[in-house]
Amino acid sequence: MAEKGVKVFGMWASPMAIRVEWALRLKGVGYEYVDEDLASKSDALLRHNPVTKKVPVLVHDGKPIAESTIIVEFIDEAWKDGYPIMPADPYDRAQARFWARFADDKCNAAIFPVFTATGEAQREVVREAQRCLKTLEKALEGKKFFGGDAVGYLDVVVGWYAYWLPIIEEVSGADVVTDEGLPLMKAWFGRFLAVDVVKETLPPRDKLLAPNKARREQLSA
Amino acid sequence: MAEKGVKVFGMWASPMAIRVEWALRLKGVGYEYVDEDLASKSDALLRHNPVTKKVPVLVHDGKPIAESTIIVEFIDEAWKDGYPIMPADPYDRAQARFWARFADDKCNAAIFPVFTATGEAQREVVREAQRCLKTLEKALEGKKFFGGDAVGYLDVVVGWYAYWLPIIEEVSGADVVTDEGLPLMKAWFGRFLAVDVVKETLPPRDKLLAPNKARREQLSA
Repeated sequence: MAEKGVKVFGMWASPMAIRVEWALRLKGVGYEYVDEDLASKSDALLRHNPVTKKVPVLVHDGKPIAESTIIVEFIDEAWKDGYPIMPADPYDRAQARFWARFADDKCNAAIFPVFTATGEAQREVVREAQRCLKTLEKALEGKKFFGGDAVGYLDVVVGWYAYWLPIIEEVSGADVVTDEGLPLMKAWFGRFLAVDVVKETLPPRDKLLAPNKARREQLSA
Repeated sequence: MAEKGVKVFGMWASPMAIRVEWALRLKGVGYEYVDEDLASKSDALLRHNPVTKKVPVLVHDGKPIAESTIIVEFIDEAWKDGYPIMPADPYDRAQARFWARFADDKCNAAIFPVFTATGEAQREVVREAQRCLKTLEKALEGKKFFGGDAVGYLDVVVGWYAYWLPIIEEVSGADVVTDEGLPLMKAWFGRFLAVDVVKETLPPRDKLLAPNKARREQLSA
């Protein structure tokens, strides 16, 4: 049941918006979900996030918060007695934030070109994406999840790779995350997707494939 | 006196590295400062920050942390009984993080082109920088500092504007922050630069002007 005054403005296919739903569900906080048409954004979204006009936005007791990673930290702090999303130790928190920033700034930028590239150019962008993910994989060494024994902040931030990267691979025909090249990452994909709050929020694969195929055709045209 | 095991790797002219010094001084934490030559980085810097290889890096009890805003949050959490850098309320913290991200991602990107542009192109990039700062200025409304009555996280993150922007203006001949266009920001510049821990850490203006003049000549060549 939705907790009074918790509303999420998302878009069903957005890998950034789903972070907010994962964080709320880890905390066991109910919410009202509003799906936005990004081609025709609602007045409510534009009023709540006039600066970047993007989803996701979390509205808590009437007050809006934008930017998915910032929302996830807010959720952890606002419901601080619930499931711990951020690591307890300040140094571990700094490391989680560092890798989250690295993934969002570097790896996402390295992954997106895989969508559109073909031939030798594709092999090069795939190698670049793999190099970035290989660096990120260090944060998984000796651990079940990025958060340790259980899902934490960094799992929530990079969790979309586990579901969306195989779709990008299918659409583009490229192999990015292989058992040989990124064994820890690949094994984590399976473990992360088996987590209940993750499983129950994922959009249907077929429904995601269609717009991503269309996007590749449009971008590579 | 330097607290045992607190070391900052910076570069005297870096507006990102100075954030770390401001945060430590607000907390009253002594530190050893290592000035890096970015053209020939030390083995220690590369060992402590193998991923991005950038300054600043904070080393605390032998453990390195990179990325200036992440370091500032770490300092606030590691010395949590000292001067409060982050706002106490989770919502206010989320807002401070949002504006810090906005400034670093949008405003910095809008400000840097002012360096090199000339003529009509310069007038356009100046207008773009002003639009961004005008949006950021909303976070100052009704307050003495971004942090409220005293300097806080957002002041530390955007504080470099107060000292470096007038230098960029002098070097480029452009007026970006004026009393008429950005009155709250301009008044805050004066207040921020009058804060003791800020004043005592700023590099000499003349010493900063020289490389910035050289940089403009190089970039606009």
